[in-house]
Amino acid sequence: MAVPLRIALAGLGTVGGGVIRLLESNADLIARRAGRPVEVVAVSARDRNKDRGFDIGRFAWEDDMSALAARGDVDVVVELVGGSDGPALALGRNALAAGKGLVTANKAMIAHHGMELAQAAEASGAALKFEAAVAGGIPVVKGLREGAAANEIERIYGILNGTCNYILSTMEETGRDFGDVLKDAQELGYAEADPTFDVEGIDAAHKLSILAAIAFGAKIDFASVETEGISRLRAADIEQADALGFVIRLIGIADTETGPSGEETLFQRVCPYLVSRDHPLATVAGATNAVVAEGNYSGRLLFEGAGAGDGPTASAVVADLVDIARGITGAPLGVPADMLQPMPKADAGHRVARDYLRFVVADRPGVLAEITAAMRDAGVSIESLIQKGRPEEGGEVTVSIVTHDGPEANVDRALELLEGSDSLTEAPLVLQLLEN
Amino acid sequence: MAVPLRIALAGLGTVGGGVIRLLESNADLIARRAGRPVEVVAVSARDRNKDRGFDIGRFAWEDDMSALAARGDVDVVVELVGGSDGPALALGRNALAAGKGLVTANKAMIAHHGMELAQAAEASGAALKFEAAVAGGIPVVKGLREGAAANEIERIYGILNGTCNYILSTMEETGRDFGDVLKDAQELGYAEADPTFDVEGIDAAHKLSILAAIAFGAKIDFASVETEGISRLRAADIEQADALGFVIRLIGIADTETGPSGEETLFQRVCPYLVSRDHPLATVAGATNAVVAEGNYSGRLLFEGAGAGDGPTASAVVADLVDIARGITGAPLGVPADMLQPMPKADAGHRVARDYLRFVVADRPGVLAEITAAMRDAGVSIESLIQKGRPEEGGEVTVSIVTHDGPEANVDRALELLEGSDSLTEAPLVLQLLEN
Repeated sequence: MAVPLRIALAGLGTVGGGVIRLLESNADLIARRAGRPVEVVAVSARDRNKDRGFDIGRFAWEDDMSALAARGDVDVVVELVGGSDGPALALGRNALAAGKGLVTANKAMIAHHGMELAQAAEASGAALKFEAAVAGGIPVVKGLREGAAANEIERIYGILNGTCNYILSTMEETGRDFGDVLKDAQELGYAEADPTFDVEGIDAAHKLSILAAIAFGAKIDFASVETEGISRLRAADIEQADALGFVIRLIGIADTETGPSGEETLFQRVCPYLVSRDHPLATVAGATNAVVAEGNYSGRLLFEGAGAGDGPTASAVVADLVDIARGITGAPLGVPADMLQPMPKADAGHRVARDYLRFVVADRPGVLAEITAAMRDAGVSIESLIQKGRPEEGGEVTVSIVTHDGPEANVDRALELLEGSDSLTEAPLVLQLLEN
Repeated sequence: MAVPLRIALAGLGTVGGGVIRLLESNADLIARRAGRPVEVVAVSARDRNKDRGFDIGRFAWEDDMSALAARGDVDVVVELVGGSDGPALALGRNALAAGKGLVTANKAMIAHHGMELAQAAEASGAALKFEAAVAGGIPVVKGLREGAAANEIERIYGILNGTCNYILSTMEETGRDFGDVLKDAQELGYAEADPTFDVEGIDAAHKLSILAAIAFGAKIDFASVETEGISRLRAADIEQADALGFVIRLIGIADTETGPSGEETLFQRVCPYLVSRDHPLATVAGATNAVVAEGNYSGRLLFEGAGAGDGPTASAVVADLVDIARGITGAPLGVPADMLQPMPKADAGHRVARDYLRFVVADRPGVLAEITAAMRDAGVSIESLIQKGRPEEGGEVTVSIVTHDGPEANVDRALELLEGSDSLTEAPLVLQLLEN
């Protein structure tokens, strides 16, 4: 039998347990496909004695996670601890410095430190892989980096956060408000006790910044992702969208454009979009993720599957291990890290889009005239407007507007004109339309 | 600059032209991603002097296609000639025997001779890649072989023929009959003058047999694919399906099961299915392809995109070339060809399914009693039955039945009981239901 690929596993939560289970239950087929067995030899986690429902006694144990990287009997370190810095990053750095492969599901760490880690991997000739960091079990990092490698990618976008998608599709089905559905999602384990990273779009932005780097040959630039979450959405927005033929999804989207001085700039945004009902992303419900890559030769490629969960995430982690066992390493981001371009953030103001604007206003005369005058003065052309009273909410009225195609800057200008108006009882919500 | 990967291209039709165009227009990014330039150095086709809209004067020319394999200045042969045997196969064999890589879009050749070619590639250490042979521009061969490598695949199925999908979705939109829509598709270039390979499901069966081998670690067994095309479908079937909440799609589907003597057997079928409207494949319209792989850890993975066309096919061909340039070769079918299992054809009779049965019958008393008696006698339980007169067709009546879940053998038995009945004016049509 060929020499096994020896794994050290840091983090023994649900995903870590999934990886151990997978490597055992599918051991024979993995050995056939990898050309050699893939075996866990050492593990580490915060608490050695926690009851995990599986036996870790057969693995070597390290109290100090970072010591996994120093073990002579380990080829690849699998990091499933989480957190952009701290022990995860220390372990990752140590592993690569020691020339060991690093496989991680840690999107925050790659979004923040992926450039440094990729350079370290390339310097030491070690593999760095993170399929599980983006869209769970969907092999979209591989699909983009290798499957679409012949293409100039024109745009990449998708549903990258299962928690948000679960909340939005549940709001859609039940007509309930965000807060309600979130509470249920927390009870069901679909959302964390502190849901900020998910519902404010930060998790999706981590993933988007990784995909954008691969797609466009740009340095990972998480800080430049414009991010807006779903916590301000109301049942009324979903209802309005529905009436217009749309569903609302949290979409991460990225493309490039030529900036004012001729330089290539990078546009990255995570935001709820009104997705037209005939678009393939509109039928993506529950905790499913889906990513669309538009290549200049391939046309539109869609990758869809489970965005989270121990099984799917373990599937992605082990796919990376099989690649490493087969000797498939290569540049983690598709081209050597030093060849990735530093791309300035694109100015979104001149981008042309149809928008959905929602105002919550006091129920009194003249409010509509004030809003429409601001639109007119800013050069925003209105396609449709619906005003709806919500008597149960103390005289509050929602005004929903869909604009014609126009520059984003005009909409921004209209909102500026309305800033401070005491007709508006909360800040306006602006969503864009994603059409098929 | 690193040493280029030197390509010989056989076949200069639309896909060949697409490959040449792609390699030129995306040359810089391909060189970055591949780590070295990918360059066409020699070409061959039937007719040297045909006007192709692009210049081939800068490439070396071979009148004898097979001579491409013998050239000392070539690393990889790209075969885009087509046909399961003949010049394509001769070229493929020669290329691999000479230790050169072989990249092909030829599904018929891989379905019929993939085992031999994979063995030849493994023996000579050369790469054999055929991403473009299955589902055009969608990186599903890679997705399955590498992205899903950690999983035992439980089932794989999908829409594998763009021509059929175009015809079916057009029948659906327009209410027109098969023959009509086919004629239009031929005029529009979506269907060949001789459409047999497409509309009778043979092309989809070629692709399915390749996917099944990778998914289940089985030897490619095209001969065992049960194949039924779409030419017998009527507008009335699509209408009935619609009324029941389904659309009709030509689906290739494969899984494995334990046979009577405990051996693993392989089920492979290409057939029109009634796909429930909430299934992701139901919204796949036009010439799009889509493949679902169900892994025991990943869950359902969906890959969707353009199933044909020069751009998408070229995208897949060049992705293979980039892999080869990067040194990613490995077993063409995921595990070494000698480790693939010869799996006997599964007996479908005991498989449990809901079926759609459509009878065309003479408009006279007693016919319905005859059909329902046969169903009863064969143990087929009827869920719904619709009888519809079609006065414009000379007294012909269609009877559409949806069964409850039951073994396929019972349905076969019912049809046997009705065989030879002069109440039936054409052979009954049996389609299965694919539910979400």
